[in-house]
Amino acid sequence: MRLRIDLAYDGTDFYGWAVQPRLRTVQGELGTALATVLRVPSVNLVVAGRTDAGVHARGQVVHCDVANPGPRHLIERRLNGVLPPDIRVRRVVEAPEGFDVRFSAMWRRYAYRVIDTTAALDPLRRHHVLTWPRPLDLDAMNKASQAVLGLHDFASFCRRREGATTIRTLQELGWVRGADGVLEATVRADAFCHSMVRSLVGCMLAIGEGRQPPEWAAEVLDAGVRDATVKVARAHGLTLEEVGYPADAEVAARAQETRTRRAAADG
Amino acid sequence: MRLRIDLAYDGTDFYGWAVQPRLRTVQGELGTALATVLRVPSVNLVVAGRTDAGVHARGQVVHCDVANPGPRHLIERRLNGVLPPDIRVRRVVEAPEGFDVRFSAMWRRYAYRVIDTTAALDPLRRHHVLTWPRPLDLDAMNKASQAVLGLHDFASFCRRREGATTIRTLQELGWVRGADGVLEATVRADAFCHSMVRSLVGCMLAIGEGRQPPEWAAEVLDAGVRDATVKVARAHGLTLEEVGYPADAEVAARAQETRTRRAAADG
Repeated sequence: MRLRIDLAYDGTDFYGWAVQPRLRTVQGELGTALATVLRVPSVNLVVAGRTDAGVHARGQVVHCDVANPGPRHLIERRLNGVLPPDIRVRRVVEAPEGFDVRFSAMWRRYAYRVIDTTAALDPLRRHHVLTWPRPLDLDAMNKASQAVLGLHDFASFCRRREGATTIRTLQELGWVRGADGVLEATVRADAFCHSMVRSLVGCMLAIGEGRQPPEWAAEVLDAGVRDATVKVARAHGLTLEEVGYPADAEVAARAQETRTRRAAADG
Repeated sequence: MRLRIDLAYDGTDFYGWAVQPRLRTVQGELGTALATVLRVPSVNLVVAGRTDAGVHARGQVVHCDVANPGPRHLIERRLNGVLPPDIRVRRVVEAPEGFDVRFSAMWRRYAYRVIDTTAALDPLRRHHVLTWPRPLDLDAMNKASQAVLGLHDFASFCRRREGATTIRTLQELGWVRGADGVLEATVRADAFCHSMVRSLVGCMLAIGEGRQPPEWAAEVLDAGVRDATVKVARAHGLTLEEVGYPADAEVAARAQETRTRRAAADG
């Protein structure tokens, strides 16, 4: 049986999602907790959005295949009893037929949060909101964001990985300032290549503080090569908020479609 | 010259506001930072709302009397440079004539936050949102809250202190459930006696989970003596959100009025 596990974590004290020897990772902690609860030697976990060290998640999704897991609500409760307080399981369900946490996904949505005014500094949010020392111009950032939306080769904003495509559809990128003064970016795409969200945000911060004009974002994108003047924004402002899936009846077809497209693009 | 300092802090790693020997306190850290920035041996700080160990603040207000402080915006920036990241100064201004951070206040407003559903667990907020293991009935809690509003002797909800009045006006007490599932109480009074907010919340939590009927809150209040069955809710769910002051021209009169009333009440 395939389980779908929805979880949230505070990334501060993790070396990211993926297991690494002798380092504290989300995959490591969750895998150990699941093995304890299910009384098996180990569990193979597949994740929707691999998060880097320091990146948080409110809507991370994981799947794993297990035999005889027992009642789902008991797994949920037992997992939260065993897990450290910086990881919380929000839901455990049996996945629909053909569900793949990675390939069935329609989109990933991240938020990046930054505060640029002294009057709104909030120590309670300092672990997931970046403090920026200069005022940011929301209009300039939104103008620049609009210009990079859609289907593009995002190589300029990605750490290249051999044989992996950097062609992505950026479905949403926009900034709003909340009543509390915090600037929040919503960044949504079918999928992201490595460091893409934080590079896009780094570009927008340079534009927001006036160091670059709004047109710069599209210029960087069009150049098509990694640009060293684009700084990768710090990890702790970034949170994976939600992963979107189609209706249960369509998750298998969506997974097949993604696999085919990736194979062609990565070819 | 009297300075008014507005600040916020994460109470997790503090033994409360008030200075204690060899313990880390907000008053201790802020006093040391101010003395450094103003180049004086020490600074006497007066606070609007003394917070207990583990209680947070977003809208704490402090005053102190200093000679030749220099430009206020420089003090603000330098203080934030010297202070640890769990205290942030939001504003430093010259206080209006006759301003007293404690006696000029019209009201203190606190928030208490609690989450009672697994699906909404958020590790990023675990330091300032209480996790409650059973579902809470919002309507029952609001019914109980309504019954204790107004001018009363709150002795049943206070830790008694010799010679201090426990007569207070509870101006607001109400619960709402946010879109994120978090239950938030707003608690506002002219002033609070010791442990009053957390005792009121503890009473409401017992009612919310159905262990006591909504009528219980008024019964406890009417009894007029500390009731051991009322649990003091844990500190980390509590945040001092705001202290209300009258217009500048009225702060002196308000301070005088409060002093007179307290003197009469405390006998």
